[in-house]
Amino acid sequence: MRETAILEIGQTPVADHWDKSLLEIAGEPVLQIFEKTGMNTVDGVFFGNMLSGAVNNQLHLGSYLGDWLGARHTEGIHVETACSSGASAFRQALMAVASGDIDTAIAIGAEKMTDAPAEEITAELAAASDSEYERDMGISFTAMNAMLMRRYMEEYGWKRSNFAGFSINAHANAVHNPCARFRSPISRESYLRSEMVCDPVSVLDAPPVVDGAAAVLIVPLDYVRGQLGIVRILGSAAATDNMALHNRKDPLWLSAAECSAKQAYAQAGIRPKDIDLFEAHDAFTIISALSLEACGFAERGQGPRLAEEGEITLSGRIPISTRGGLKARGHPVGATGIYQIVEAVQQLQGVCGAGQVEGAKIAMTQNIGGLGVNVITNIFSC
Amino acid sequence: MRETAILEIGQTPVADHWDKSLLEIAGEPVLQIFEKTGMNTVDGVFFGNMLSGAVNNQLHLGSYLGDWLGARHTEGIHVETACSSGASAFRQALMAVASGDIDTAIAIGAEKMTDAPAEEITAELAAASDSEYERDMGISFTAMNAMLMRRYMEEYGWKRSNFAGFSINAHANAVHNPCARFRSPISRESYLRSEMVCDPVSVLDAPPVVDGAAAVLIVPLDYVRGQLGIVRILGSAAATDNMALHNRKDPLWLSAAECSAKQAYAQAGIRPKDIDLFEAHDAFTIISALSLEACGFAERGQGPRLAEEGEITLSGRIPISTRGGLKARGHPVGATGIYQIVEAVQQLQGVCGAGQVEGAKIAMTQNIGGLGVNVITNIFSC
Repeated sequence: MRETAILEIGQTPVADHWDKSLLEIAGEPVLQIFEKTGMNTVDGVFFGNMLSGAVNNQLHLGSYLGDWLGARHTEGIHVETACSSGASAFRQALMAVASGDIDTAIAIGAEKMTDAPAEEITAELAAASDSEYERDMGISFTAMNAMLMRRYMEEYGWKRSNFAGFSINAHANAVHNPCARFRSPISRESYLRSEMVCDPVSVLDAPPVVDGAAAVLIVPLDYVRGQLGIVRILGSAAATDNMALHNRKDPLWLSAAECSAKQAYAQAGIRPKDIDLFEAHDAFTIISALSLEACGFAERGQGPRLAEEGEITLSGRIPISTRGGLKARGHPVGATGIYQIVEAVQQLQGVCGAGQVEGAKIAMTQNIGGLGVNVITNIFSC
Repeated sequence: MRETAILEIGQTPVADHWDKSLLEIAGEPVLQIFEKTGMNTVDGVFFGNMLSGAVNNQLHLGSYLGDWLGARHTEGIHVETACSSGASAFRQALMAVASGDIDTAIAIGAEKMTDAPAEEITAELAAASDSEYERDMGISFTAMNAMLMRRYMEEYGWKRSNFAGFSINAHANAVHNPCARFRSPISRESYLRSEMVCDPVSVLDAPPVVDGAAAVLIVPLDYVRGQLGIVRILGSAAATDNMALHNRKDPLWLSAAECSAKQAYAQAGIRPKDIDLFEAHDAFTIISALSLEACGFAERGQGPRLAEEGEITLSGRIPISTRGGLKARGHPVGATGIYQIVEAVQQLQGVCGAGQVEGAKIAMTQNIGGLGVNVITNIFSC
């Protein structure tokens, strides 16, 4: 297996891109990469996207974007694993380069969610759950997270207010990220007063419906060794769990997150305490807590303590959502996994200004598809 | 790059499976593989499917099937490249095993097309073309093939009757395939009298809307070397072309098919004349002709001559559609690429009875997504 590296990154600001097509927002980060590297084609385009078939009437996205870029006779793939489509596209691109089959791969995640009414998006997102036993019963993703959060609060004695720190941290960090959707800080009071979506999940526990696209260029490490700003991929692992929440013996433990993180740690030869920052899949505040526990940063049932004690902030023990996370940078579902990687690269390159994690040497990203169903963990170093 | 092999195959009969869900037809071929190998899990499930999001309200298929199979903590991926989704899933599985990242991979293609009315399927299939410049103008895939066929007939002086041999051959071969949708031979007269769908494409130039699923198990060659019936993967390559037909300089030449075939020949170290059988993407009779030309079996503009002169039959120079092809075995779109590979394996194992290509040693499959847009060519030997 060849070692791999990220040579360049690109991203479109997360926003409501009413004036642009999926193709235009997806092309932007790749053109940034082409401009920075002087390249004008690649061997493969691995496109992570969840909703385009339903919302944009467009499938076949790897070929579609490849054609638009002028990259003919390439590998062109569309990868979908719900909200982890981005990281899955990254992993497929990674394995293609690692196998030696191709040398240059663009892993892109792009999603245009504002092309459909919110209620349609809610229904389409439920295609990530078990359609027969969850979606068809009328339960939305937000509702499942609400049930999970309530059970967790009941089991471990936390109040809703104990989750405030996750949302406050994400919004505080997004202020310094020009590509983030929400660049205003929020207070504990505004979290507590925020409008309920599905009790106990309020609008400040949940991510916004937005558009966005981000891309990375993966190459064999040997081709670029020694170049400035190259980011090495030390570990990458995927793991699945039961699709339906009710099928899990222990719904309050993200088993797939634990499994993929442990594999990634082993590949990288490191332990959780070696991680300088963690771009977690903070789609809901409850998922931030569960992810920190599954990945070995908190004891079982003690995730909220890290938020309460400021350990997740930029200067804390394990900074998360350092560029705003899913909550405040935004969660254009199929693009999120690539945004996380782009942000990890920025931190390792030390270009985040006031949002910088000082001295960051090792970064971890974790992207989750479904409710803890499909989890991809990556570890990077500069 | 590790060498890879196919250890086992499985398939669901192509049919109108009114009584089964997508998951049930997809599970069947994998359970066949588990039963034959004594395995009960795999490292990764790579699921090729095009229409499930739109037709079955279910995405996230790699995790979904993995869960159903009881294969927890695995890699679970859904790959989509329109009608070549099956072969793309195969290639992603192949690269994952070749990279050394995982050891056992199920590549599955499954599609349940009969869960929606035919006119809805026609609209959804057009999501494989350029949505803004083709689909939104109201042109269907069949109509694009009809325009291509008419232009080809005009350019090279062929009549519609000269394409009859492709359809006759496919139906004749399907008689011997218990998994084929249409197991009755057709005559030249019935081809000529067949009902027009979009002139000059009749129902006997086009594939049926059907359900089906097929799977293969990929492992490192070193793990199984010397075992009876093992099929080696000698070459595998993908290439893309312009998405929209009107953007191509030469619409009558399948450039991506040529490119991927040439790469696969080079990897395998063989020439077209070494191929004993070719499972071509005969979605339409015009595509059979163009594929034979692009892959070096016929001169430009002379594809129909091979059908006219019987060279594509089981005993001909280059047998195609040996188990019925897309035309008569059926074309459950995302599953087709895997059916082709399953059939190539059967030919190499010599288990096709009256449908056997005598002495087959090297087989080629070619799966096409969109109208010549995304082409995956694989070469196998026993």
